[in-house]
Amino acid sequence: MLSMKKGHLYIVGLGLSPSMVSMLAIETLRSCDHVFYEEYTSIPSEGSIKDIEILTGKGFEKLSRRDLEDLSAIEIFTRLDKGEKICLASWGDPLTATTHIYIASEAVRRGHGYTYIPGISIATTALGFSGLMIYRLGRVMTMVRPRSSEEAGEIYGKIRRTLDQGMHVLLLLEMDVEKGYYMKIHEACEILLKISKDLGDKDLEGRKALGLAGLGSRSQKICYASIKDLSKIVIEKLPQSILILGQPYFTEQEYIESMVKRYGSCWSLLSSET
Amino acid sequence: MLSMKKGHLYIVGLGLSPSMVSMLAIETLRSCDHVFYEEYTSIPSEGSIKDIEILTGKGFEKLSRRDLEDLSAIEIFTRLDKGEKICLASWGDPLTATTHIYIASEAVRRGHGYTYIPGISIATTALGFSGLMIYRLGRVMTMVRPRSSEEAGEIYGKIRRTLDQGMHVLLLLEMDVEKGYYMKIHEACEILLKISKDLGDKDLEGRKALGLAGLGSRSQKICYASIKDLSKIVIEKLPQSILILGQPYFTEQEYIESMVKRYGSCWSLLSSET
Repeated sequence: MLSMKKGHLYIVGLGLSPSMVSMLAIETLRSCDHVFYEEYTSIPSEGSIKDIEILTGKGFEKLSRRDLEDLSAIEIFTRLDKGEKICLASWGDPLTATTHIYIASEAVRRGHGYTYIPGISIATTALGFSGLMIYRLGRVMTMVRPRSSEEAGEIYGKIRRTLDQGMHVLLLLEMDVEKGYYMKIHEACEILLKISKDLGDKDLEGRKALGLAGLGSRSQKICYASIKDLSKIVIEKLPQSILILGQPYFTEQEYIESMVKRYGSCWSLLSSET
Repeated sequence: MLSMKKGHLYIVGLGLSPSMVSMLAIETLRSCDHVFYEEYTSIPSEGSIKDIEILTGKGFEKLSRRDLEDLSAIEIFTRLDKGEKICLASWGDPLTATTHIYIASEAVRRGHGYTYIPGISIATTALGFSGLMIYRLGRVMTMVRPRSSEEAGEIYGKIRRTLDQGMHVLLLLEMDVEKGYYMKIHEACEILLKISKDLGDKDLEGRKALGLAGLGSRSQKICYASIKDLSKIVIEKLPQSILILGQPYFTEQEYIESMVKRYGSCWSLLSSET
């Protein structure tokens, strides 16, 4: 039998862009024997992994979806079994919406140490930039191109039920980094309008939403419009997401109105020039 | 008429503790003419504002709930009207669950610049440390001591409906920093059990939940038990919150089971000794 040493796995969130990384994340990455990173669950809204490599003074090794999911993160476990201290870094907050939790479970089951270093997440940041409260967020979903009318109906049903309760819906938009595909706000709205038309639901067209592009970058964009109008605005900045409004509370409505009154239907809010 | 200059307001999230502050937050705080901070919406899980003062090399001025809410943040607006660059710092993510958004709206209405610097939030971090997915989070609430049976019924109804949909509930626990009151996990569970008893609902007693104490600190604690059992465990570490489980997905269940199998019903997961 192979003798197996105990390693330690750190799953590290880098936040939305290199400037949002925490000091704890930097320290942790510096202390690891080897750092893996992946960019298939999310990409930075500006800058690149190079910036984090410079900050930490080390070179990181990229893993693909195949490495982490189909091959069960074998490269990580091989090093852990040698007793190494291994970091796995991702953009945003790495655990809330990804499947990396199974790697953590497996590390713990095998007797390795495990630590999670949280990062600034798109979920709370999207609310903050939009002036919406987490108390009124009903559901976070990843919006994908539906492969069947059944799947389309399911996506729609979840959105519909949440809005009917007066709660907001956050849609993270599908991305396939390896194939270079990133769903954009206008495309997601087109898909939603098509499904709602097929189901004979007219409410969604005029429903207000916030289209969020490249949050956390100096060139981020936040646009407030009906879903129909958002389906016509093409924004390039990535990654993108959408907050569909349920019944906004008066402070939420007031905030959005102040922004629209001052800047028009699209604004930025990160660079100090705005 | 007074001549009014244009200032710039930065609402800055410090994360859960000084080690989790982002580099963008540090830079921003350094660049402000004056930094205000408040600790009534949340407190750090370890360290203190002193640590951030040292990091930024400046002294901050504390504002109370009264200063910010009853007195409409007049100290902030007086300085903005002089054309100053003003920071307002809070622990966690300052916008998702607080009322500071009205200060942002007002600054924008008065023609000042406004920038939001997000922080690491308890909402996503609680999920990450618990192995739960944001896709299955149905509602975030602040659990307060109910002042009437009507209020008790409302709190309970929201929790009940969310769990019935199979979704998880995150309860942030009431704190009144100025009076030194911090609701603890066991107290929140006692309140829930009392309401459920009064309403003749037996399900909640045995319902599984995660009690989360001092997340982001080296001495944080995460306990997995039924609400009845959590009502008997007193944990001192602050601040505290509770994740009540809806229908956990298999990866969620697996993760929790690996933790319980290895560490028993309570674990830490931040210090590298675990």
